[in-house]
Amino acid sequence: MKDIAVFSGSAHRELATEVCAHLGVPLSPVRTSRFANDCLEVQLQANCRERDVFLVQPLVHPVQENLVELLLMLDAARGASAARTTVVMPHYAYARSDKKDAPRISIGGRLIADLLVSAGADRILAMTLHSPQVHGFFSVPVDHLHALRELAAHFRGSDLSNTTVVSPDLGNAKEAAAFARLLGTSVAAGAKQRFADDRVEISTVIGDVAGRDIIVLDDEIAKGSTVIELMARLRELGAASVRIACTHGLFSADALKRLSDQPDVLEIVCTNTVPIPPEKHTGKLKVLSIAPALAEAVRRIHNGESVSALFDTP
Amino acid sequence: MKDIAVFSGSAHRELATEVCAHLGVPLSPVRTSRFANDCLEVQLQANCRERDVFLVQPLVHPVQENLVELLLMLDAARGASAARTTVVMPHYAYARSDKKDAPRISIGGRLIADLLVSAGADRILAMTLHSPQVHGFFSVPVDHLHALRELAAHFRGSDLSNTTVVSPDLGNAKEAAAFARLLGTSVAAGAKQRFADDRVEISTVIGDVAGRDIIVLDDEIAKGSTVIELMARLRELGAASVRIACTHGLFSADALKRLSDQPDVLEIVCTNTVPIPPEKHTGKLKVLSIAPALAEAVRRIHNGESVSALFDTP
Amino acid sequence: MKDIAVFSGSAHRELATEVCAHLGVPLSPVRTSRFANDCLEVQLQANCRERDVFLVQPLVHPVQENLVELLLMLDAARGASAARTTVVMPHYAYARSDKKDAPRISIGGRLIADLLVSAGADRILAMTLHSPQVHGFFSVPVDHLHALRELAAHFRGSDLSNTTVVSPDLGNAKEAAAFARLLGTSVAAGAKQRFADDRVEISTVIGDVAGRDIIVLDDEIAKGSTVIELMARLRELGAASVRIACTHGLFSADALKRLSDQPDVLEIVCTNTVPIPPEKHTGKLKVLSIAPALAEAVRRIHNGESVSALFDTP
Amino acid sequence: MKDIAVFSGSAHRELATEVCAHLGVPLSPVRTSRFANDCLEVQLQANCRERDVFLVQPLVHPVQENLVELLLMLDAARGASAARTTVVMPHYAYARSDKKDAPRISIGGRLIADLLVSAGADRILAMTLHSPQVHGFFSVPVDHLHALRELAAHFRGSDLSNTTVVSPDLGNAKEAAAFARLLGTSVAAGAKQRFADDRVEISTVIGDVAGRDIIVLDDEIAKGSTVIELMARLRELGAASVRIACTHGLFSADALKRLSDQPDVLEIVCTNTVPIPPEKHTGKLKVLSIAPALAEAVRRIHNGESVSALFDTP
Amino acid sequence: MKDIAVFSGSAHRELATEVCAHLGVPLSPVRTSRFANDCLEVQLQANCRERDVFLVQPLVHPVQENLVELLLMLDAARGASAARTTVVMPHYAYARSDKKDAPRISIGGRLIADLLVSAGADRILAMTLHSPQVHGFFSVPVDHLHALRELAAHFRGSDLSNTTVVSPDLGNAKEAAAFARLLGTSVAAGAKQRFADDRVEISTVIGDVAGRDIIVLDDEIAKGSTVIELMARLRELGAASVRIACTHGLFSADALKRLSDQPDVLEIVCTNTVPIPPEKHTGKLKVLSIAPALAEAVRRIHNGESVSALFDTP
Amino acid sequence: MKDIAVFSGSAHRELATEVCAHLGVPLSPVRTSRFANDCLEVQLQANCRERDVFLVQPLVHPVQENLVELLLMLDAARGASAARTTVVMPHYAYARSDKKDAPRISIGGRLIADLLVSAGADRILAMTLHSPQVHGFFSVPVDHLHALRELAAHFRGSDLSNTTVVSPDLGNAKEAAAFARLLGTSVAAGAKQRFADDRVEISTVIGDVAGRDIIVLDDEIAKGSTVIELMARLRELGAASVRIACTHGLFSADALKRLSDQPDVLEIVCTNTVPIPPEKHTGKLKVLSIAPALAEAVRRIHNGESVSALFDTP
Repeated sequence: MKDIAVFSGSAHRELATEVCAHLGVPLSPVRTSRFANDCLEVQLQANCRERDVFLVQPLVHPVQENLVELLLMLDAARGASAARTTVVMPHYAYARSDKKDAPRISIGGRLIADLLVSAGADRILAMTLHSPQVHGFFSVPVDHLHALRELAAHFRGSDLSNTTVVSPDLGNAKEAAAFARLLGTSVAAGAKQRFADDRVEISTVIGDVAGRDIIVLDDEIAKGSTVIELMARLRELGAASVRIACTHGLFSADALKRLSDQPDVLEIVCTNTVPIPPEKHTGKLKVLSIAPALAEAVRRIHNGESVSALFDTP
Repeated sequence: MKDIAVFSGSAHRELATEVCAHLGVPLSPVRTSRFANDCLEVQLQANCRERDVFLVQPLVHPVQENLVELLLMLDAARGASAARTTVVMPHYAYARSDKKDAPRISIGGRLIADLLVSAGADRILAMTLHSPQVHGFFSVPVDHLHALRELAAHFRGSDLSNTTVVSPDLGNAKEAAAFARLLGTSVAAGAKQRFADDRVEISTVIGDVAGRDIIVLDDEIAKGSTVIELMARLRELGAASVRIACTHGLFSADALKRLSDQPDVLEIVCTNTVPIPPEKHTGKLKVLSIAPALAEAVRRIHNGESVSALFDTP
Repeated sequence: MKDIAVFSGSAHRELATEVCAHLGVPLSPVRTSRFANDCLEVQLQANCRERDVFLVQPLVHPVQENLVELLLMLDAARGASAARTTVVMPHYAYARSDKKDAPRISIGGRLIADLLVSAGADRILAMTLHSPQVHGFFSVPVDHLHALRELAAHFRGSDLSNTTVVSPDLGNAKEAAAFARLLGTSVAAGAKQRFADDRVEISTVIGDVAGRDIIVLDDEIAKGSTVIELMARLRELGAASVRIACTHGLFSADALKRLSDQPDVLEIVCTNTVPIPPEKHTGKLKVLSIAPALAEAVRRIHNGESVSALFDTP
Repeated sequence: MKDIAVFSGSAHRELATEVCAHLGVPLSPVRTSRFANDCLEVQLQANCRERDVFLVQPLVHPVQENLVELLLMLDAARGASAARTTVVMPHYAYARSDKKDAPRISIGGRLIADLLVSAGADRILAMTLHSPQVHGFFSVPVDHLHALRELAAHFRGSDLSNTTVVSPDLGNAKEAAAFARLLGTSVAAGAKQRFADDRVEISTVIGDVAGRDIIVLDDEIAKGSTVIELMARLRELGAASVRIACTHGLFSADALKRLSDQPDVLEIVCTNTVPIPPEKHTGKLKVLSIAPALAEAVRRIHNGESVSALFDTP
Repeated sequence: MKDIAVFSGSAHRELATEVCAHLGVPLSPVRTSRFANDCLEVQLQANCRERDVFLVQPLVHPVQENLVELLLMLDAARGASAARTTVVMPHYAYARSDKKDAPRISIGGRLIADLLVSAGADRILAMTLHSPQVHGFFSVPVDHLHALRELAAHFRGSDLSNTTVVSPDLGNAKEAAAFARLLGTSVAAGAKQRFADDRVEISTVIGDVAGRDIIVLDDEIAKGSTVIELMARLRELGAASVRIACTHGLFSADALKRLSDQPDVLEIVCTNTVPIPPEKHTGKLKVLSIAPALAEAVRRIHNGESVSALFDTP
Repeated sequence: MKDIAVFSGSAHRELATEVCAHLGVPLSPVRTSRFANDCLEVQLQANCRERDVFLVQPLVHPVQENLVELLLMLDAARGASAARTTVVMPHYAYARSDKKDAPRISIGGRLIADLLVSAGADRILAMTLHSPQVHGFFSVPVDHLHALRELAAHFRGSDLSNTTVVSPDLGNAKEAAAFARLLGTSVAAGAKQRFADDRVEISTVIGDVAGRDIIVLDDEIAKGSTVIELMARLRELGAASVRIACTHGLFSADALKRLSDQPDVLEIVCTNTVPIPPEKHTGKLKVLSIAPALAEAVRRIHNGESVSALFDTP
């Protein structure tokens, strides 16, 4: 396989730049034009012929714009005779549309997977998909990373002797347990209840949290309501302090402000799978970079080395 | 669309016969031959040309034999010019292989879905798939039924004033809550924990069970270990009595005997999505028929009426 | 084939409503939800099963939002067992991306055609595609209508004895000639030149325009620059008056104002393939409805009658 | 292309081990698990990424189990990013289902070929397919070997001056003639007759067999009835001695015993395309290994050298 | 399904006309234009929309012209919204390219089958394919007729008490035996030998022919060499008289003259699957029409009745 | 990628030979057989396994024969395990069938593109396609060359100080302008008019031609009528001399003679994309070779270098 060529769509150019810096390859330029009729046209401005092409584009707000731009980039790479095109998609927003829980609805998670393949994606590099079954929606190989190592490295700097990792949801408790093993701490989990009236609330926390320093771990935080509700339970149960960690910091609307305003929150930690505009940064927010991990995965994909070996959950 | 033609593979001919009786159409004969070299050949022994063909075959033990027979039936129906072929698959065993939780493993749930479509399946009629995401593995329309109505009808005959429905797992609590609404009872759920050492155990039961008459509800029971462990918790918490209900009664090995031997189990109720050999029947087992529901779904599919309207969860 | 079911996306609900009124069928409701992460989900809120489904959605601003919504509607219709799904797309903006005139660019016209088919489109009903070759980008049948009849009917009310139809471009002169035949007038055309420096200008007008009442005919008007340049030539050549006609009135930015401000423009006539917001309406603008034509085409498609017979160019 | 990775399914691990020994590469381990519900899951336990993967699995008894295991292995290899996956399938049992000689039957030979490609097979290495047309059932390249060289080498050790090769069937006489050319002997053939009552019998032998040492050559022997009937004819015609040779020694039921019990049979020679359990071995059976031939073909496929050059029939 | 529309390519318009007469439907006109650059364009000149379209075109000389015309007709029918398109192909010349008996050759029988499906064929109506495996080359349903009934009806008019049907080749003896059963005669077969030097000759005739009236039956006669050689054997064996029958009378070069010049040939009978130009007709040639059989098959396909029921071999 | 293997079909072996000479690789032999039934069979007579295969075949008269031969070559290359197969198709005659301008016609340009891909084409090397949209008909990468450099080199040898390039059609004026830039001359264009009666005539020439030495540039010349009509206009406008240049010199019927007979034509220049039989050569005809350009493009495709960089229009 010939050399790597890395391109970035409009969604998160900072991340792509950082990945390229770690790889030691240039980020090749892309020209995206918008015509008077609102259509997009993409030009990949470096030779793709027989190259191992990587297109970096998380599906983040504005999702539809970023998605269509990505599809056009895939088309351009195919037409330009790329040897192989890998979509580096650290956030796949449509993964949440993964089931048909009402009649005649779209299953966006599967549809978008099919469209990416139709447009020419040969493989996908994803991170912390909302449910593991989404992997099976793709008919091409998927490398599915997670960010636990990066989050753990951050917390290892502080005293963890009195710490407990808490998952807001028993459904994600497996990931929280893995995280606790990485940190050498105990684990607990909130139990969401969806009882007679479809109302969801966290009725209880399973595991000991009284007097503990808590790290709440979730895959993504959008509106933040679940975490805020969990914190109410933790307070009732006498938790000593709270830090919040997640992979995808979507922080829609004023989520970041609402979380930061909670007085017992010491810190909010997320990764840069999703770009966070400067105006949303607060004193309590800490954004870790997953660029080194993505770069290492890209390097291994390019060289044909095992990616699973690297990212095995402990 | 021309007339219906219903065929059954070897997996569960009794169910197919019963569905046909409810539909008022004959079960068309199938000849499955096995050659000296162990290959199968299928002949559909009734005209399929421009017919609306339904092939009844749950994927149950022996799964591989039943799967290949089904694929050959699909091929025969396509070659025989069926107008449309629907697989009536009340149990889809491979649905449990729905994620890639280790490197280089097969995702059977997606693969078999693709193979069914390759062989000529135009649509699927399934029941209580293990996870709702499996729906998205199919590239053809899926009608996904459940058996809550049938199970509820059974229990409505008895006094439910002191009854609580218990899900062994918070992951399935949504279905248990729907079932409880159908019965007008309260609901509770066991909380499975997968902590530091990957050991799973039911550490607690969320919701009040002391002195209550319990109905344990699960989607399927194979070895029965989870239910047996749940019963230990229920006993500790002072439950008054236990009845067990599930859709798919796989009852592998001696599961049925182990469950029946629990003295506080009053009754074990399942449906006939999976055939249960006579020698496994015990005094406590009650098998409900989902043939009327399947027949009604087939009738609606054939007539182009809404299936979701019929099977909506209350 | 069962009954028609017509749904509309968000792009142009007024047009869909009008088409349904002409067909005498209800416009079935669609629920489009936007989640906190900016993803869309579509629910078709009427039974599609074995129905002849029509989805009305011109690809107009915001194009990417409308496109993804349309793809999700197609997915929902397929999953809901539609017998056939026709996309009624009176404006296909991506048709202008029809060639590869620079290295490594996307050919959006072909890509989007493929995506629509991937998502489940069985056929397309289009109007006045930018170039006739775009028809060949679709691998499913396309009914390609034009609006000349509607435009001609509008002008027939006035005295046409001194009228000449002028195409701004010789490339579209064929359509202008057909229009002139419908009106019984003479025809002329501007000659665009793209000479040594890629600058395009209309250097001359072929055919007699001095002292004539001019009807300028174009397929679409976006920024309006070409038409404004043509009018300068027409003035130099002594044209008596000018009226402007087009099928797709995109009128981006202040195009409508700029055209209306030309003192010798008597009238600007377009159709409603593209929604025109009330604030853009000026005294000189006249919008004709192509809803009757679309409705008749839908009726014929549903009944299996010849559509080409109806829309033959005279 | 990166290094070779060879895996074996459960069908014939001895053969795969032997092929690897000849190639000088390790046989990579495979874990096949069977769940309580009788479903299989496959894990390829060596890195496949960008490797040239070979999966060894003849379709032999139990055919359905081995087939589904092979399909799952293909899925796992695809998901694990194999650069190319070749199925090494020295016996393709379903090749006998190659025509539609009754209404509404499956054509298994074509269906299974399609399923293998659906599951991810990039090419096939087959041996002595039942009819040469089966090659055309595959939409991917097929290397089609035969075992005549190996069988000939075995017989060359003895005095062949009085030997005649006999095909039981004129349909396969071409292969027998090629074999005779390799050995420098004469050739003859039994003529099967399928006359008025669909009864098949060998009515005559074309060519001189009186007083000759006979080598009967067939592609496969399952029940052995045809060979036993041919031997009756040969006895009547005064053949001096008989040796039996075939590529695929299926030997179903007691075929091997029935053949060995014929007093004038000196020897039964087959290859190891099909595993022969130790308890079936008799004093007269001689099993030749085609592992060196398969290994050489694998080596050439991996290196892009001509395979046809090697295996040309003389 | 709407009405039938039958079109004919250039290959054999007489046959199509005759089929339509039997069906009682008009043969719809087709315009095939040839441009200055030798390209073809096809226009189907009758409404196809939602019609059940049948395209009659045997692949006969000039095969390439007829094949491309057929592919263009399929494209036109698809673009014109045919509900279903059936290719009525009574002679499929490429069926003889059914195996790979030399390295790096095309397998035309499979390739052309794939191209027909790519171009839009939904099903095939074929007659007497050269080998039954060719059926499996098509991924769409094939109705495979034969002409034995028609040929038998012709001979039943004469005294058959001393008649024997002879197949030139044991490979086709099954069909000859079926034909003999239809006529109530005995059967015999020539045994072709392909011995040490790849020379093929008919060394013997199995079955009694001395003093018998012979009907030679073959699937097709092109150069006629095999039949002429068989007649030499029949003469040596003392046959009384010879009549020749086949389905496909290709009669390339002077085959018809060479056969007619044999003094002991009483009659040459074929069907009109292939057009025979008037100048080739000789006194001994008798052409039977298979138009009634094709018409009946078309009628049954259109009505969804069983075709196999009609054409079962006795 | 392994070595190049170049094969030529029957259409234009001279060109292929010349391309290979420039590449410094041998032209590998192809055996095309025609059977008695008029079917073709192709054998590629050099190893293709893992090779980078190029098949040279312009679609020229006899188009259907050459097309089917090309499809069979593609099938043979795929079956022979080519790593990649590129069709070198310097003339694509079916490109003119690029739109549906009448009901129920074939769109040959798209259909043949699909068939080439179905048969195994991985990429296309084309030259001067009739309309740029045809590029979008292919679902595989297309390298689209033009011959302006070669044509310009020819004219640069003479005095161009008084020269003007004239396009017969404003539709192609862009190419003429690029050509004029290469030569440093002025440009003009004929304006074709298609007015009320569908009659096409060149009514005028835009740009100054009086007293100028004219080079008429067109993409292809078949019957030559347009050029002859243009010359009448040029004469009327006082052009001094005329030379004619085109890429594809089809020269159907007596076109070459008719053009040469025009007394004011000094020279007719075309390239060898289409073979010109010796008997058509006249004293005024000059054929330039595009073999060096094709060879350079093949070399770059093989090496993964940018082709667009080389052939950019100035």
